[in-house]
Amino acid sequence: MARNDERRSALADAGIRVLAEDGARGLTHRAVDAAAGTPRGTASNYFPTRDDLVAALVDRIGERLRPDPDGPLSRTTRAPDRTLFAEYVHDVVRRLRSDPHVALALFELRLESARRPAVAQALSRWRQQAFRDDLTHNDDSGLPGGRTEIALLHYAIDGLLLDHLTAPLDTGLTLDEAVDEFVDRLLR
Amino acid sequence: MARNDERRSALADAGIRVLAEDGARGLTHRAVDAAAGTPRGTASNYFPTRDDLVAALVDRIGERLRPDPDGPLSRTTRAPDRTLFAEYVHDVVRRLRSDPHVALALFELRLESARRPAVAQALSRWRQQAFRDDLTHNDDSGLPGGRTEIALLHYAIDGLLLDHLTAPLDTGLTLDEAVDEFVDRLLR
Repeated sequence: MARNDERRSALADAGIRVLAEDGARGLTHRAVDAAAGTPRGTASNYFPTRDDLVAALVDRIGERLRPDPDGPLSRTTRAPDRTLFAEYVHDVVRRLRSDPHVALALFELRLESARRPAVAQALSRWRQQAFRDDLTHNDDSGLPGGRTEIALLHYAIDGLLLDHLTAPLDTGLTLDEAVDEFVDRLLR
Repeated sequence: MARNDERRSALADAGIRVLAEDGARGLTHRAVDAAAGTPRGTASNYFPTRDDLVAALVDRIGERLRPDPDGPLSRTTRAPDRTLFAEYVHDVVRRLRSDPHVALALFELRLESARRPAVAQALSRWRQQAFRDDLTHNDDSGLPGGRTEIALLHYAIDGLLLDHLTAPLDTGLTLDEAVDEFVDRLLR
């Protein structure tokens, strides 16, 4: 069972790589087997349909983006102020930029959501949950920012990362400076 | 010549449709001919390489997004205040949401920029020019907002439109409300 889980994760990681490197249309069972170095038919055994494969990729993306439970921001006793809020946003951005395959795969799946309802459903479920978790976290810890602020930050950080990971505009702002400006201006 | 131009635009429009509906990997000369209803080989005659095709699509996207020269915001004599600035942003958003194929095609090309330097080059040239034009327009007309504000708004509106056109987060904000919040908070 543990070995099956490992194989499952390795296949999902290969799928994330395929998405990032070849785009959504390149994501086939055969391409996943090729990227994972597994015998043809392996990916189909684990994920019989393409929708099963996409659902597994979304789960795996969630795992790879999860904050480090022993990281400095976890169970912190610091005051829940704007500075701490900004650090949480920087932390999300850091996780996404340090794992560009995951970030690009997410953008590919979002575009495919416009074409395939099953992809939209798998991705929306996960994104909605992440959004609700952010709201709950802010409420529970007394951090500034409510529903509107967190929504605006989600949109803004998405656009910023898309720019950073593709062909960046020469705006004069570094990624970190832009994050600081967003938090400073959007948080009331 | 005029007829050639028409054919060229029709082929580019077909390419935009292919990008939006099938994604970047679906963009081939053959798919463009099929979508345009032209004999096979026509797209290759007009745009010999795939990079030529992408460059033509970027040009055509620029044409389709250009503001109406007779629109209410063109050569306006209104005071260059925050309200007018907000209307310009709403106008851009309106043009993109009313032509979702163009907006989705742009996002597809941006993701392909991460994989293909030639696409990155064609797209960056156009986006940088649009960014500089925005700066010049603001300066010349005395509108509020400098380089930083316009950069932040570019990122924010990109993320907002990506959300709106794919599988929207249920944040409680309509697209127009989010635009107003962004202008209100990002503009200093």
